Amino acid sequence: MRLLTYTTKENDEARLGFIHNNQVIDMEDFGDISNFPLPNDMLDLIDMGFEIITEITELIAETPENFFEEIAYEMNEVIFLAPIQKPRKNIIGIGLNYTEHVAESARSLDTSNELPQQPVIFSKPPTTVTATNTEILLNRKLTNQLDWEVELAVVIGKDGKYVPKTEAMDYVFGYTVINDISARDCRRSGQWIVSKGQDTFAPMGPVLVTKDEIENPHNLNLSLTVNGIEKQNSNTKFMLFNINDLIEDISTVFTIEAGDIIATGTPAGVGAGRTPQEWLKDGDVVKCEVENIGTIVNTVKEI
Amino acid sequence: MRLLTYTTKENDEARLGFIHNNQVIDMEDFGDISNFPLPNDMLDLIDMGFEIITEITELIAETPENFFEEIAYEMNEVIFLAPIQKPRKNIIGIGLNYTEHVAESARSLDTSNELPQQPVIFSKPPTTVTATNTEILLNRKLTNQLDWEVELAVVIGKDGKYVPKTEAMDYVFGYTVINDISARDCRRSGQWIVSKGQDTFAPMGPVLVTKDEIENPHNLNLSLTVNGIEKQNSNTKFMLFNINDLIEDISTVFTIEAGDIIATGTPAGVGAGRTPQEWLKDGDVVKCEVENIGTIVNTVKEI
Repeated sequence: MRLLTYTTKENDEARLGFIHNNQVIDMEDFGDISNFPLPNDMLDLIDMGFEIITEITELIAETPENFFEEIAYEMNEVIFLAPIQKPRKNIIGIGLNYTEHVAESARSLDTSNELPQQPVIFSKPPTTVTATNTEILLNRKLTNQLDWEVELAVVIGKDGKYVPKTEAMDYVFGYTVINDISARDCRRSGQWIVSKGQDTFAPMGPVLVTKDEIENPHNLNLSLTVNGIEKQNSNTKFMLFNINDLIEDISTVFTIEAGDIIATGTPAGVGAGRTPQEWLKDGDVVKCEVENIGTIVNTVKEI
Repeated sequence: MRLLTYTTKENDEARLGFIHNNQVIDMEDFGDISNFPLPNDMLDLIDMGFEIITEITELIAETPENFFEEIAYEMNEVIFLAPIQKPRKNIIGIGLNYTEHVAESARSLDTSNELPQQPVIFSKPPTTVTATNTEILLNRKLTNQLDWEVELAVVIGKDGKYVPKTEAMDYVFGYTVINDISARDCRRSGQWIVSKGQDTFAPMGPVLVTKDEIENPHNLNLSLTVNGIEKQNSNTKFMLFNINDLIEDISTVFTIEAGDIIATGTPAGVGAGRTPQEWLKDGDVVKCEVENIGTIVNTVKEI
């Protein structure tokens, strides 16, 4: 399923929906017409366990097409919010997870040139989350080195501890696109949270695609443009630690929980690694795409 | 008020309470007998705004003592949980915030000898939180350098952005004690979250003391013992960035929110800074005390 959180011009309350035949269907309304109660919030849906996705998919297949007409919106009638607007904890970020990005970071930032032996973990507060078609806020009092990072984000579907990599996919609910915006001049004693944690520094969306729809999450193109010019273009097959590795490692350190979001790292091509270095400025349009998931577009706004 | 989250032998559902005449009074029950509905959860109480504390305090003063008898527990009848068992986001930690600790860290860890010019921020996931009288889990597959850090924790009372330091105290709800347990050998590319973020690495409690009860949060003794031997003993007046500075700075970077917890940093005397270095081992008993707030005691358990 392709799930979304949305509002409409008529109703600014955030609602859960899914895409069906290129239209948006409200999840709770679909439950009502199906006599099968369904939630109106993404985290509530995730908490029901992945089995619910199988059940809803079957229910949709059994539903006559004309039943959808009354509860359907055209795509351009809805406003896409971040699939999970308010994560329950900080987003779990992974640094230095693509070889070429390790090299460019070593040249331009203060990181090592050696490939990490274990995933490099950091976090982004829930207040970083923003939707597609919103603004990335550039606070000149904090930074003059605002940078981009397109990434595949993994959404966790159930709680786990010491998850072996062979079972890791059981703990995945689905995937979305994230832009791990980073202010390179905001590291403090080497810590990245101020660099990566400012409000609006995690554009996310446009949809959450459940894992059954993605044949191989380790073979997805991901790319990023700034003002239409390509800056990043790679494939998730080049991750140093793949999703299974990451879930095994992260769940060894922390208990992972349903609704957790793992931003799996960015490939080469960030602004810090270019010659000369490039930084985002007021009005720049940043577009992130991950194959089979979608595209998010955000405009930089100097404040 | 001295607020707590507790269970009893008879009821393992977490409840909100307060301490009155050295007894524990259930908050919701007190609301019931007072015809003044009150919540049974700490975060719900905080969400009501600090004014509710003034109202409850007045209500208690007006309540005849015999009214409390039926809803009172003796202190030894209740089990103290962490005041906020499940924070809504990662705990905001502050590193290198006491001069002598900056010096000992520079000697023993890979941090700079210079005093930080801005607060050094990191985070601890909600899954780190544990209560007094619980175990700190030592996973030998992850660490052989488990260390202690007594700290004053500040609980935020309302949302804010760009809070000037002169108004910072308006955003404080109260205070508690935290032990910022740190596995020194778990830093990855310098990031501290694996070091400080493992399950049970944030013992917290025993109570949340509302700000009206603390005359000056910048003049509180704080100390820590391991197996009865004093390891840390200092005073919050020696913080490099005081609470007002921290709230101004943090709220410039992130939107701060009601229920946020700021661990304000530890003074000198951690295990990493000693000669020879000392690390926690199975069975060690760590006791943290902050003046006018209370004491938390935790035992290290090797797993």
